[in-house]
Amino acid sequence: MSSSDLSILQGIATTRAIRRYRDEPIPADDLSKILFSASRAPTGSNRQNFRFLCLVDGPRSERAKAILGQSFRSGWAAKQRSDGYGKGSGERDESPKARLARSIQFFVDNFEKTPVVVLPLVLERHGGLVDGASIYPACQNLLLAARALGYGGVLTGWHRPVESELRALLEIPDDYVIAATIPLGKPLGNHGPVRRRPLAELVFEDCWGHPAEWATDPAGTEFTQAGPPQA
Amino acid sequence: MSSSDLSILQGIATTRAIRRYRDEPIPADDLSKILFSASRAPTGSNRQNFRFLCLVDGPRSERAKAILGQSFRSGWAAKQRSDGYGKGSGERDESPKARLARSIQFFVDNFEKTPVVVLPLVLERHGGLVDGASIYPACQNLLLAARALGYGGVLTGWHRPVESELRALLEIPDDYVIAATIPLGKPLGNHGPVRRRPLAELVFEDCWGHPAEWATDPAGTEFTQAGPPQA
Repeated sequence: MSSSDLSILQGIATTRAIRRYRDEPIPADDLSKILFSASRAPTGSNRQNFRFLCLVDGPRSERAKAILGQSFRSGWAAKQRSDGYGKGSGERDESPKARLARSIQFFVDNFEKTPVVVLPLVLERHGGLVDGASIYPACQNLLLAARALGYGGVLTGWHRPVESELRALLEIPDDYVIAATIPLGKPLGNHGPVRRRPLAELVFEDCWGHPAEWATDPAGTEFTQAGPPQA
Repeated sequence: MSSSDLSILQGIATTRAIRRYRDEPIPADDLSKILFSASRAPTGSNRQNFRFLCLVDGPRSERAKAILGQSFRSGWAAKQRSDGYGKGSGERDESPKARLARSIQFFVDNFEKTPVVVLPLVLERHGGLVDGASIYPACQNLLLAARALGYGGVLTGWHRPVESELRALLEIPDDYVIAATIPLGKPLGNHGPVRRRPLAELVFEDCWGHPAEWATDPAGTEFTQAGPPQA
């Protein structure tokens, strides 16, 4: 089965954050399908107040990737300290924590080589959470379509410290917000089952805190802790 | 091909807002798969600060659906006036505008009979747009998984006028926000191709306003205007 035949449920269950990419461009046809898919997402009153600014290899794109690369490296350095990546199990090379740390280190060190970086933009309308309903569904469509076509990416927010610099460089109008930074490429590693907390903790029925009895993880589901790896 | 074999790209291209449902419950197995899919979505630092409160047929659910039904009917009455649904082409029975108005009228009139209403909740962390990155991707997964299994739904925001009443009834903690209201059921009508503006308006490369040349709508794509139907 080619990955583009993946069923929706299989695709959803195996679309993980992918941070390490092969040094290969994404062909135009595939990129077009990925962005077409993104734009099929819903927006408030179908206003379609979303835009997708793609950084590939143009002059401003190279510069924007360099600005982002710096910001991602600073962001990771700070997070490594604040989340204690080098402590506890992080001191053991083969712990999940140490493996995640190496993957993120590779990601930020190679950011400038990311084949495509998509900046999803949304018109600031209500100025809060609810504006996200008109852009993050599209981000998820984009990641799922990339998965279907053999690519991977990750939804990140480390553009925020350099947002004003990027806005000037890329001529982004004042009323549009950069909602995320999504790097995309062909994975160096593999996709695999997404792991989460058990459904009994996440899905309630009739009242907050009452687990929905019908919500059961499929046999063989593996779980993970919530949040950054802990010591 | 059963709808659960739909490919990701086909599913994404045909997941439309579904507002009219058959008077049939959603079997537990299907509902479980839909919520499992929702919870596979990414969240900031994988904190999984999302919860899904499902209103089915419990005592508080019935009451919450009634509160929401009132709010949806008021919301639609106001929108009908503000967006001029009864004017211009809306006066012709078979115009898209009149059809959409009838569909929404049916939706709000029958809200209490909606088989399942999901309230996606997210921990308020940054207090703005970015919190949406930890809940709206899950909402899109939920809608896509529903589509795959033969159901449909719509991402709505008409709970907002009654949010405090719902919070008290459903014992939602102060630090969690109701991000949307998603009714779900078996469609009375059909799914079909999602229509949007041409990609040249939505997808830019290298700089704001520069259409990405490689971004092309597939042959036969039909377009729609952005926003509520106009006169």
